[in-house]
Amino acid sequence: MAANEADIKIWGLGVGPGDPELITLKALRILQAADVIAYPAPDGADSLVRAIAATHMPVGAEEMIISTPMVTERHPAQNAYDEAAGQIDEHARAGKTIAILCEGDPFFYGSFMYLYSRLSENWRVGVVPGVSSLNAGAAELGVPLAERNDVVSVIPATLDEADLAERLAAADAAVIIKVGRHLDKVRRVLEAEGLAAGARYIERATMDGQRIASLDDMSDQKAPYFSLIIVRKAADI
Amino acid sequence: MAANEADIKIWGLGVGPGDPELITLKALRILQAADVIAYPAPDGADSLVRAIAATHMPVGAEEMIISTPMVTERHPAQNAYDEAAGQIDEHARAGKTIAILCEGDPFFYGSFMYLYSRLSENWRVGVVPGVSSLNAGAAELGVPLAERNDVVSVIPATLDEADLAERLAAADAAVIIKVGRHLDKVRRVLEAEGLAAGARYIERATMDGQRIASLDDMSDQKAPYFSLIIVRKAADI
Repeated sequence: MAANEADIKIWGLGVGPGDPELITLKALRILQAADVIAYPAPDGADSLVRAIAATHMPVGAEEMIISTPMVTERHPAQNAYDEAAGQIDEHARAGKTIAILCEGDPFFYGSFMYLYSRLSENWRVGVVPGVSSLNAGAAELGVPLAERNDVVSVIPATLDEADLAERLAAADAAVIIKVGRHLDKVRRVLEAEGLAAGARYIERATMDGQRIASLDDMSDQKAPYFSLIIVRKAADI
Repeated sequence: MAANEADIKIWGLGVGPGDPELITLKALRILQAADVIAYPAPDGADSLVRAIAATHMPVGAEEMIISTPMVTERHPAQNAYDEAAGQIDEHARAGKTIAILCEGDPFFYGSFMYLYSRLSENWRVGVVPGVSSLNAGAAELGVPLAERNDVVSVIPATLDEADLAERLAAADAAVIIKVGRHLDKVRRVLEAEGLAAGARYIERATMDGQRIASLDDMSDQKAPYFSLIIVRKAADI
């Protein structure tokens, strides 16, 4: 879709799940031509997405940190996004092109959408899709996510036990994301539903420190935020 | 994960949803170093994935067509996959590296898994994840797929009406895929469930001939196979 790109000043770029080689040609091209490169970083910590893109960062580009305070999941940092959107808007009005880096895919559980909703009121914002951690996790595990007429659900581990069980029941295969400190709860649900045997665990898929483990091996262990469990109900391939 | 790639002779490569620029650096590198490039093509028709990768095909590589006869969705062409797996096995035993091209992501509703299950019995098969049509569709529509604790379901339009309604009820957002000749049925279900207003339609996302339309505009029209509908229950961003 390069034909009408010229008037786009603001881009959300999916940089992929972790391996720097899993960025697309399109995201790389736009990243390297950008005047300003913006990315989120939690207050006082390093930016994961900046690290994923590190080897691709153009020399001389201006960098803009979107500082996101640690807040509860239900109340995203509205002020931080208002402020960042204001800064990006200013850059765009100054004629600069801004690339906003997003882990995985921009529209899949990322914080980019909070910027997108603000910026797209006044600007045409380009979005370059990326390889999501789901697809990366399945590839590294060697487990197909979906076949034929499967219903596949992506289920955050943050849901309560009854809700998790119900959502799992309504799917043929599932990816449980954001496992983190919810691992014990998720394992209890999978065991109660008879789904533990068909479940595969991976953390930090394609990133440094990737680890694949069985759910049994993970007893007494805390999972990192970037972990997921793929659940297939029947190995009928 | 380049460290231990050297012993992999057989690769499944996600080439992305259609735009040739949405291939990853990793898939491109492996594609261009392959001795044999294999891809599915329906009997007597052109290969869509070959077309997506056309500008990236290395000069001089041997091409292998995996001819997939038109069959019902419940009975994949087992003989065709047996035969193709046999040919790929032969190439690998001859010391060649084989790249199998996959539309979107290899493990997401593709036919690659039928080869993977056969070939991984004797070989370590590498899988390079790709940008799926879901992420591409959301990006082109400008519609976030998932936020915070949303459960997102991918639902084939091939299900019957009651099943479609039930699966939609169990999700916070959904992507209905394989719309094709099921468009009228899907529209009926979305209207009955009060979800039509929050539904967005796109066909051939990022491919030549991409089209975005409202569900109303699509009345009396047949949708192509590569079409999807993104359904969000609440625009609460």
